[in-house]
Amino acid sequence: MDKFITLNHGSGGKLTGELIRDVFAGRFGLSDPLTDSAILEKSGFKMAFTTDSYVVDPLFFPGGNIGKLAVCGTINDLSVSGALPVYLSAAFIIEEGFLLNDLIRIADSMAEEAKTAGVRIVTGDTKVVEKGKCDGLYITTSGFGYLRTGYEQISSAQNVREGDRLLISGPVGNHSVAVMGARKKLSFSTPVESDVASLNHLIGKVLDRSREIHFMRDLTRGGLATVLNELCKMTGMGIEINESCVPVEEPVKGLCEILGFDPLYLANEGKALIVTGEKDYEEVLEVLKSDILGKQASVIGKVKDDRKQMVVMNTSIGGKRILDLHSGMQLPRIC
Amino acid sequence: MDKFITLNHGSGGKLTGELIRDVFAGRFGLSDPLTDSAILEKSGFKMAFTTDSYVVDPLFFPGGNIGKLAVCGTINDLSVSGALPVYLSAAFIIEEGFLLNDLIRIADSMAEEAKTAGVRIVTGDTKVVEKGKCDGLYITTSGFGYLRTGYEQISSAQNVREGDRLLISGPVGNHSVAVMGARKKLSFSTPVESDVASLNHLIGKVLDRSREIHFMRDLTRGGLATVLNELCKMTGMGIEINESCVPVEEPVKGLCEILGFDPLYLANEGKALIVTGEKDYEEVLEVLKSDILGKQASVIGKVKDDRKQMVVMNTSIGGKRILDLHSGMQLPRIC
Repeated sequence: MDKFITLNHGSGGKLTGELIRDVFAGRFGLSDPLTDSAILEKSGFKMAFTTDSYVVDPLFFPGGNIGKLAVCGTINDLSVSGALPVYLSAAFIIEEGFLLNDLIRIADSMAEEAKTAGVRIVTGDTKVVEKGKCDGLYITTSGFGYLRTGYEQISSAQNVREGDRLLISGPVGNHSVAVMGARKKLSFSTPVESDVASLNHLIGKVLDRSREIHFMRDLTRGGLATVLNELCKMTGMGIEINESCVPVEEPVKGLCEILGFDPLYLANEGKALIVTGEKDYEEVLEVLKSDILGKQASVIGKVKDDRKQMVVMNTSIGGKRILDLHSGMQLPRIC
Repeated sequence: MDKFITLNHGSGGKLTGELIRDVFAGRFGLSDPLTDSAILEKSGFKMAFTTDSYVVDPLFFPGGNIGKLAVCGTINDLSVSGALPVYLSAAFIIEEGFLLNDLIRIADSMAEEAKTAGVRIVTGDTKVVEKGKCDGLYITTSGFGYLRTGYEQISSAQNVREGDRLLISGPVGNHSVAVMGARKKLSFSTPVESDVASLNHLIGKVLDRSREIHFMRDLTRGGLATVLNELCKMTGMGIEINESCVPVEEPVKGLCEILGFDPLYLANEGKALIVTGEKDYEEVLEVLKSDILGKQASVIGKVKDDRKQMVVMNTSIGGKRILDLHSGMQLPRIC
């Protein structure tokens, strides 16, 4: 029987993982298809290389736009891979009839974000497709960075041990709720802004301070819960987190309740999970909190020896809940 | 007055150049926005980095498909920049409802082409958009290569001198005619196959043999005529070519006549312009002809001291014709 691609294949959940494994990973010889960046080496000189397409709908939302998102997203993928982001490329697929001034606004915010983050956009491409063959604008950014010495294994989570602490750099759910609010189809508008931000400086500070950072990942498609599940799979261990320790801002919480969304599964664009050794976590928390992008950072739980590789959450009302990998999606085109 | 993006902005001609210069180059600080790759340096170690989105319609055409095109195109951009292509990324934007088996066929040919060319696809991304928000599939490939020593200036044409010879690696127009033929709207089908091919090995042989290669460029969007005009602009000199020396295969010629297209402006996906010093051109021609991808290579003309920076063609019937830069396009979505 013929099989077709569904929106769920793009959700960042189980089906996305299956698609990548079944269609691409084997054919392309990707050893670690679900990490954020490929790690390359040439005569002892190590680099990270990553790519992402951005198809967010709408293109402009409170706190950012597709251009800022594309720059931050690629910077963050490199950063959590232990690399110093240096160069970006940007490829634009534009729909015929797109307003030139909107393209200029988007390019402006890409340039501004790149400047703030200290990276350079060095190459690009522009294609135009007929009206109706794209939704305004899609941007694909690729990024290239120099790997920090000693962080070759950080994406693979090989150094994660039982008892390691899990920290997140701030509250979750803001990006998804901001984008939802901006979607015309939904009749509310929220005071919530996207958290889209480049995390390279924040992560740099953390890595400068601690030699015990064992894993990092930005909390994009699929959100915190998906990243925690992937971490269990990679380590063969379990995770225990405390619901009351996971920061969620009040307006985000309220809107999630109304709409039936779970903020733990919502995409963020300026948040990272950081796994540290037991001894270092308080110092790492302090470093995070000293930066504007990490001031609401929180220790949310720890790594447990659990062969079932489950993510268990102690709920606020005293129960336990298993956070599974969703096969489908909550929200299409959130990034 | 509001200005809008038109299909002509994506044609690779004058308007594409203007869009890149006016919207992107200044904001992003691109020093050389129209070259194929950015040249990067880190403590004496030089690299080339490039990106391209592929939106070809239809996705499958005689001689190839969008996947093969995306791999070859990025390999060729690196190769003509004097780099050895090593790593590729591939980002997929897929329309909901896309046939999984078609995606597999495309991934298969990407893997096969990468293997033939000796490059590795090391990282990727998958996004899915709703039905009607994309035309089946768009692919963005980025590529990374090591720059050969001594070729830092090749993309900028700084070493081009009066009297330098212009060679092309084979007949022009095949890719565009093959894609046109495959488009359902047109009621002919042709025996013409796309020339889509990775040129890295061919160009490697040329660079191994000659130290007098002054410029290279693949003849994609805008075709030979557009590349020649860009070369004039970069060097401040003129170009003279002979129409009878530019190979065009008979079926391509015939279809161009019927449809009113000029093969000199049609996109190719496996052809390069190579500019050599006067002394070396015969040897370079021999090297090209010894390879299956260059067996119809030809010396088409030379660089002239002409401050008007014009491309003048001696026509087959004994006249002269100026090859201008087209502001618009012949064919949308050819790559």
